[in-house]
Amino acid sequence: MKVGFIGLGKMGFPMATNLLAAGHRVTVYNRTKSRADELAAQGAIVADNPEDCHDSLVVITMLSDDHAYEELLLSNNKLVDALLPKTIHLCMSTISVALSEKLAEVHAKADQIYVAAPVFGRPESASARKLLIVAAGPKNGIDSCSPLFEALARKTFVLGSTAAQANLVKLASNFLLFAMIETLGEAVAFARKTGLDPNEFVNIVTETIFDSGAHRVIGPMIAQAKYEPVAFPLSMVLKDVGLLLLAAEHAAVPMPVANVIHDQLSTAIARGYQNLDETALSRIAAENAGFFAKNEP
Amino acid sequence: MKVGFIGLGKMGFPMATNLLAAGHRVTVYNRTKSRADELAAQGAIVADNPEDCHDSLVVITMLSDDHAYEELLLSNNKLVDALLPKTIHLCMSTISVALSEKLAEVHAKADQIYVAAPVFGRPESASARKLLIVAAGPKNGIDSCSPLFEALARKTFVLGSTAAQANLVKLASNFLLFAMIETLGEAVAFARKTGLDPNEFVNIVTETIFDSGAHRVIGPMIAQAKYEPVAFPLSMVLKDVGLLLLAAEHAAVPMPVANVIHDQLSTAIARGYQNLDETALSRIAAENAGFFAKNEP
Amino acid sequence: MKVGFIGLGKMGFPMATNLLAAGHRVTVYNRTKSRADELAAQGAIVADNPEDCHDSLVVITMLSDDHAYEELLLSNNKLVDALLPKTIHLCMSTISVALSEKLAEVHAKADQIYVAAPVFGRPESASARKLLIVAAGPKNGIDSCSPLFEALARKTFVLGSTAAQANLVKLASNFLLFAMIETLGEAVAFARKTGLDPNEFVNIVTETIFDSGAHRVIGPMIAQAKYEPVAFPLSMVLKDVGLLLLAAEHAAVPMPVANVIHDQLSTAIARGYQNLDETALSRIAAENAGFFAKNEP
Amino acid sequence: MKVGFIGLGKMGFPMATNLLAAGHRVTVYNRTKSRADELAAQGAIVADNPEDCHDSLVVITMLSDDHAYEELLLSNNKLVDALLPKTIHLCMSTISVALSEKLAEVHAKADQIYVAAPVFGRPESASARKLLIVAAGPKNGIDSCSPLFEALARKTFVLGSTAAQANLVKLASNFLLFAMIETLGEAVAFARKTGLDPNEFVNIVTETIFDSGAHRVIGPMIAQAKYEPVAFPLSMVLKDVGLLLLAAEHAAVPMPVANVIHDQLSTAIARGYQNLDETALSRIAAENAGFFAKNEP
Repeated sequence: MKVGFIGLGKMGFPMATNLLAAGHRVTVYNRTKSRADELAAQGAIVADNPEDCHDSLVVITMLSDDHAYEELLLSNNKLVDALLPKTIHLCMSTISVALSEKLAEVHAKADQIYVAAPVFGRPESASARKLLIVAAGPKNGIDSCSPLFEALARKTFVLGSTAAQANLVKLASNFLLFAMIETLGEAVAFARKTGLDPNEFVNIVTETIFDSGAHRVIGPMIAQAKYEPVAFPLSMVLKDVGLLLLAAEHAAVPMPVANVIHDQLSTAIARGYQNLDETALSRIAAENAGFFAKNEP
Repeated sequence: MKVGFIGLGKMGFPMATNLLAAGHRVTVYNRTKSRADELAAQGAIVADNPEDCHDSLVVITMLSDDHAYEELLLSNNKLVDALLPKTIHLCMSTISVALSEKLAEVHAKADQIYVAAPVFGRPESASARKLLIVAAGPKNGIDSCSPLFEALARKTFVLGSTAAQANLVKLASNFLLFAMIETLGEAVAFARKTGLDPNEFVNIVTETIFDSGAHRVIGPMIAQAKYEPVAFPLSMVLKDVGLLLLAAEHAAVPMPVANVIHDQLSTAIARGYQNLDETALSRIAAENAGFFAKNEP
Repeated sequence: MKVGFIGLGKMGFPMATNLLAAGHRVTVYNRTKSRADELAAQGAIVADNPEDCHDSLVVITMLSDDHAYEELLLSNNKLVDALLPKTIHLCMSTISVALSEKLAEVHAKADQIYVAAPVFGRPESASARKLLIVAAGPKNGIDSCSPLFEALARKTFVLGSTAAQANLVKLASNFLLFAMIETLGEAVAFARKTGLDPNEFVNIVTETIFDSGAHRVIGPMIAQAKYEPVAFPLSMVLKDVGLLLLAAEHAAVPMPVANVIHDQLSTAIARGYQNLDETALSRIAAENAGFFAKNEP
Repeated sequence: MKVGFIGLGKMGFPMATNLLAAGHRVTVYNRTKSRADELAAQGAIVADNPEDCHDSLVVITMLSDDHAYEELLLSNNKLVDALLPKTIHLCMSTISVALSEKLAEVHAKADQIYVAAPVFGRPESASARKLLIVAAGPKNGIDSCSPLFEALARKTFVLGSTAAQANLVKLASNFLLFAMIETLGEAVAFARKTGLDPNEFVNIVTETIFDSGAHRVIGPMIAQAKYEPVAFPLSMVLKDVGLLLLAAEHAAVPMPVANVIHDQLSTAIARGYQNLDETALSRIAAENAGFFAKNEP
């Protein structure tokens, strides 16, 4: 299939690689062009502008945040104008509900199809084709994308025709993940300070009530105060929690635990931890209990 | 083994049953005696007073809270005085850290052995011998108890010689469970109010990031606002969170998520939900988002 | 002085009235024109469009929120284009820090002067010329506005030349007020439920530690669960707290009490209280403690 | 009047001094006897044991916490046994509601009278006879104490006959004070980080909405990060908030702002600030926003 791919970051790069490996014809664009050039050897066509993807059946976007979308795609409507009618914009980023609704609207006006399909998984999962996808949008759009989903993910959940619902699921799911990190962080700080061995405590927890994959990976990182490799930096966590709280405010849903996380993140950013991995959210609970001098690693 | 068993509630009754089935000679005591009589048919010796267990090698206690221990065992020191030196008191309840330390002290003075071994699991797990046990105390005491652990649980984690450490692990683990319920409750309220199907949302969550047994059992109950069968009532959840927060205050560990849970529980109690299952903690997040008229079931 | 006045709501109307009474020549604009017409008898010139204020030395704006500013003034840049160089835009609303910075920028480009001067006080204070003003912006702009400040307020605090600082002070001060309402709400709920007389409790508090005017006015309203007259509706409180939290997120400042307030407000909105007075924030604490059936007055 | 006075701490010492100055015959007891000896020159009779106050009409107690009461007065019931029938125990400390109820009960059994009358004010106010008193208990007891109240305070509020109500008012009022400190702390941290001058901000606040005496004293201390003189150390603040939360849990009243304060206090204690003044509660908000290296003064 003729596919455009805009945004070759930590997630986008391995995803585009997998599409090429699956035999699709992929035109790639990245702001820092050298990153796109690396994919030329694998058969990618390198574009100078996002608009150069205009002859694709599906244009995938994987940009970092709302701001990047505003700047690259919406200002002056360049991408929308460049695309042919019936082209599908498959947006796989975690963006705001409001932006997703706006994209659905502008593409509909241009007789184009907008599908939101944010992904779950760290960069390693992207490489290993083990992402999980939650997709929503017009049925024909989703159907057309299914060969792409197959090349990228181990499973895709399809919701209804309102694209923004996929973004809502993504924001709420990410919240559950961050809440797990915060909660484990508090429990481990408590354990550590009352004389328990943090590793032993986490081991008991993951062998008893919480035997999920996420707990088994993240639990030991928290117990060992290990915040790398950086799969998802705290600055991005703050972005996601901010988007969740905006959507929650709009819907009049109080979310006290999300607010606790937001406060801890503000403290983390104030202390300069924005580039540490999401597991470093747990560090604030530890510091507030008196552990780790501020300027330690 | 000659075993005494004090406290035949929802958990204690099936546990004592399993000990009898495993061939132990069990003397049982319960405040409401009829409950003890039910076990006579299975070979239990029914005691009129807790002290009548004095010829046991191990006396297991499974009372509901600190208050019951104070009243039944510590006031006038009756149980301690009745037991022979070297007898083991195996306390399997979730009690306060302070009480556990006090029990360790009074038994040590009487040359008796105190082992704390709180259990994880609902009544069904107790019946099915699938409890998990976290035990701490003097090594010889724990070794002597191991045939009992085998008759009761599918796995036992052994910590060091300070009995109260087992209680700390229990309190911290329960906190993780309640935090999961609160967090899922907030996320489901958000999903419901933004137009998602709560069951579909929970299904995605448990098939992706959180595939633990606890999530698979509790998630659908929250999505369906189903708070029975009552495995662990909210009044007991409040007790446990209260014990955690006391221990955390003592250790100077801030636990903001535990405080959120405590507040939601106070609201739940104020609304008369004390006898609903722990999953009803999630109901407060739902009500605060505008769902469920207050006086509905 | 030739003054333009855009926005004749609960606050704007009495303010414009006072300017007329002080002898200024005021051109007024309001979206619902009949409201402007009421001022014609007092000598106001009624404008059909905001741009018709273009021959004023100072144009005062008193619109409800950022959105109104975006729509009325910034889209297509109409107001800015209509105003002459050196004209002063005196913005007296509580708007976001980001919008205030943007207004400063666009006016500077057009060689116009932007002054931010949000006001403290309820509509009665506006009528009685007892507002308090916090002003920031270029010194010459503020100096030119001083006769207007005199006609409107009992005192004006002048900050430095960065206009947005006045907005920051306003947001932080409003937070203190809302926090006082929430805190008193919690304390009164506690008093009521433990058998104290709420009025007696509030009386003791305001005669001892908290004898400020705000406490003396608001305390009894909370004790009596009285949420009118509506000086400032909960929907506007939510707007202000939202602006504060955005600015706090931007500056990486955790504000846990502001988050508590935000959650209570979400619950209040979910229960349909958006048009009640700000004192109704205290109602959520009362309801969560088990008082007041949901649909009572 | 023949008065006994037990507990000559920061508050008790100037209070006993005022009673002597007013012409009462005061028998004083203090654990560290030298402190009592200092009052001998002013006419006090120095007792070796609390029980030596037995010939007083009124015995005032001013001990630091519940624990001191348990140890000194209740264990073995020594004080109660020593006092004659009809003697009044006037308890002026901030103690738990539960302890106050227990004292009322034991004194009633001994045909003695128990009055709870906690005080508002810092040590300087005690010296200057400017305390405020909230008293509750049997009417005849309160009437008999009125000459003492006059010698100690500038005003006394009398509640009904249930002594513990005075303690409830005290706990709830202290909460309002601590909440004011926390809230101002957050607002000042926000102001500081967004470039405002903290002193200017506090000045505006105290000249506009919050002109109470408490705000005028405490506001500048927070703006200047000044935590002395130590009128009321953070360790005592934690004690009081703990008592409030216990009473709130018992009454099923959620108090989210009280929980925020409790968390901040835990952090403060974990960082070694227990002996700083209550105003240092505001320091945690500042530190969490990135101000003040951890080990600065």
